[in-house]
Amino acid sequence: MSKAPERGFPDTEFATRTSRAQALMQRAGLAGLLLMTEPEVRYFSGFHTLFWQSPTRPWFLFVPASGKPIAIIPEIGAELMRRTWIQDIRTWSAPAPNDDGQSLLTELLTPIARRKESIGVMKGHETSLRMPLGDYERLLDGLPGLQVTDATPLVRSMRMVKSAAEIQKIAHICAVGSRSFAGVPDLAHQGQPLEELFREFRREALKQGADDVPYLVGGADQGGYRDVISPPSRRPLNAGDIVMLDTGAAWDGYYCDFDRNFAIGRADDLSRRAYDVLWRATQDGIAAARPGATCRELYHAMQSVIAEMDDQGGDVGRLGHGLGMQLTEWPSIAGFDDTVLQENMVLTLEPSLGYGDGRIMVHEENIVIRPEGARLLSSRAELELPVI
Amino acid sequence: MSKAPERGFPDTEFATRTSRAQALMQRAGLAGLLLMTEPEVRYFSGFHTLFWQSPTRPWFLFVPASGKPIAIIPEIGAELMRRTWIQDIRTWSAPAPNDDGQSLLTELLTPIARRKESIGVMKGHETSLRMPLGDYERLLDGLPGLQVTDATPLVRSMRMVKSAAEIQKIAHICAVGSRSFAGVPDLAHQGQPLEELFREFRREALKQGADDVPYLVGGADQGGYRDVISPPSRRPLNAGDIVMLDTGAAWDGYYCDFDRNFAIGRADDLSRRAYDVLWRATQDGIAAARPGATCRELYHAMQSVIAEMDDQGGDVGRLGHGLGMQLTEWPSIAGFDDTVLQENMVLTLEPSLGYGDGRIMVHEENIVIRPEGARLLSSRAELELPVI
Repeated sequence: MSKAPERGFPDTEFATRTSRAQALMQRAGLAGLLLMTEPEVRYFSGFHTLFWQSPTRPWFLFVPASGKPIAIIPEIGAELMRRTWIQDIRTWSAPAPNDDGQSLLTELLTPIARRKESIGVMKGHETSLRMPLGDYERLLDGLPGLQVTDATPLVRSMRMVKSAAEIQKIAHICAVGSRSFAGVPDLAHQGQPLEELFREFRREALKQGADDVPYLVGGADQGGYRDVISPPSRRPLNAGDIVMLDTGAAWDGYYCDFDRNFAIGRADDLSRRAYDVLWRATQDGIAAARPGATCRELYHAMQSVIAEMDDQGGDVGRLGHGLGMQLTEWPSIAGFDDTVLQENMVLTLEPSLGYGDGRIMVHEENIVIRPEGARLLSSRAELELPVI
Repeated sequence: MSKAPERGFPDTEFATRTSRAQALMQRAGLAGLLLMTEPEVRYFSGFHTLFWQSPTRPWFLFVPASGKPIAIIPEIGAELMRRTWIQDIRTWSAPAPNDDGQSLLTELLTPIARRKESIGVMKGHETSLRMPLGDYERLLDGLPGLQVTDATPLVRSMRMVKSAAEIQKIAHICAVGSRSFAGVPDLAHQGQPLEELFREFRREALKQGADDVPYLVGGADQGGYRDVISPPSRRPLNAGDIVMLDTGAAWDGYYCDFDRNFAIGRADDLSRRAYDVLWRATQDGIAAARPGATCRELYHAMQSVIAEMDDQGGDVGRLGHGLGMQLTEWPSIAGFDDTVLQENMVLTLEPSLGYGDGRIMVHEENIVIRPEGARLLSSRAELELPVI
């Protein structure tokens, strides 16, 4: 097993991110960023906990125009936040339905509101508001003069390009994922309920070094599966099934996200052909994924191969996406996305196609963009549909 | 291993939930509920997928004043939604940053807005807005006349009281959790990094029948741990450590949430006393958890025992909470919560205390409220701090 990198980041990583954000904020005329979603709070503070899975308490990180970020958080997180580089930590005893951080936020933001300045809040594509909407509305009502701008473009531009330490973590979990998939032929067998294969795969990924396997979906059916987001059923694997597992395993807060297809006992011709088309679409995607190319170009490079069998692309909406602290991140490898690829972006290439009688096949690899082109982080899928 | 219940629910469960919501909506004068968070969409539709972990796409379920709910969802989810009891499924090819469901929602809501009627949206405590805030604001701007009311009290009152089938699922995963904790003395040993114990525990819980272990936190330190929400470190377990694991394992979309404490090699007197106080606080909580009692009374029943050692309760904000489709749900067992306990509520009792030099100890059990009082779903923790 490959040695795991160091956990966490040196403080300089967070200082660099903060300075870069502050330079962008100055250009955008922002007096601060009010962040409340897990990846954004972690990105600027290093605060890392599974406690976010409890929806009860809101958490806030304010990145001011200069100086370190300020944490406004429930007291239960104070001890953990004190271990990060953050020094100004303001807490309340949460939950407190009538004042879950509102007074502390109002105190912080009142001077900014009085000067009628702008703050950035994540309001754009692929974001959500992780505090009660009613609290947000009341907060703004109490801060007349405060201008709120969408901070998504700013944060997106930073988070899409990964640091060396981030890439090291993603590469590590991709290697764990690759080793886990390599074990599937030993884990899967005819007669096994798909649910049991999923369980065994999760156990294998943990054994191989994953901290967790938060995401595991897939399907299995005669001559091809029909949907790619289902939880597993108790249906046993049969000869002639095509089975797909798609995993988002995590290590130190970073994800891999790729899938593998297998045939049980024997592979039908149509599924073998679909596999071949997707393998070549991925290959063309790898070749096209160079600094300076756009996501749209990358999309068309893959789509032109997929079109040999299907001109719809399975209608999953895109053919890949960014990857890092979240299972799926900006950008989208899609016709609508004109993001220019840059060195150190981490992406999934995820061509898919519809075939036969309502079947779908997906294929996925993880790459990092280097000056010379794409470097694979996942071990490349086998050239032909493997038969177990 | 106990036999697992059936997965999913019969359609009648969703029909009953919908009718009950519609009766409450009529009383509240609501023309519909616009739901977009995973538990709410699943509660009324049965749509169950891990795909929610991708933040990219919004999902909407509209519960009208009469008739079945209407799904407005990305095309990638259509196949899975068609397997539920929902019939009116309207999809778009997502992601589509310029129109991620907006047109479909506008079409649906325009007649309601013209009549200047109200719809309910989750805006209250323990909720968030799972769509881009900018999209939400633009949606409302395009629907002048539409009144938006906080639907949290309505949905909260329904979700807090579990059906027999829901309780069966929670009881099952609590039994899985209990068996997993019973294995800890065989999994843990001196010199083992805490990270490895966590990994082994996750593997054990999967083996015992959990679908997943999304939540696992804890701590270990000489004479007591200092925080209860951290990911595990590489620090090896030493004689004299108190180690705590707190798990939210899941089965068929329902959670258990309880913890266990262990001493490694030997237990110090103060930690043994803290354990005893918390064990008795839990016992008094179990006795107090009867239909008709309030959460506040339940809180004070436990707090009066905790006060023997600590009058702050460790400042984690509450001494337990609801449990079900989410790791933590309404209500809170706290001084601020006057919710009256009802039959078939499922709760965690989670007394905690601060002691010694900044140490904290937590103790947790899961119960269901029956006419005669609390019934334990977790196997009761040992009477004295177990030494491994």
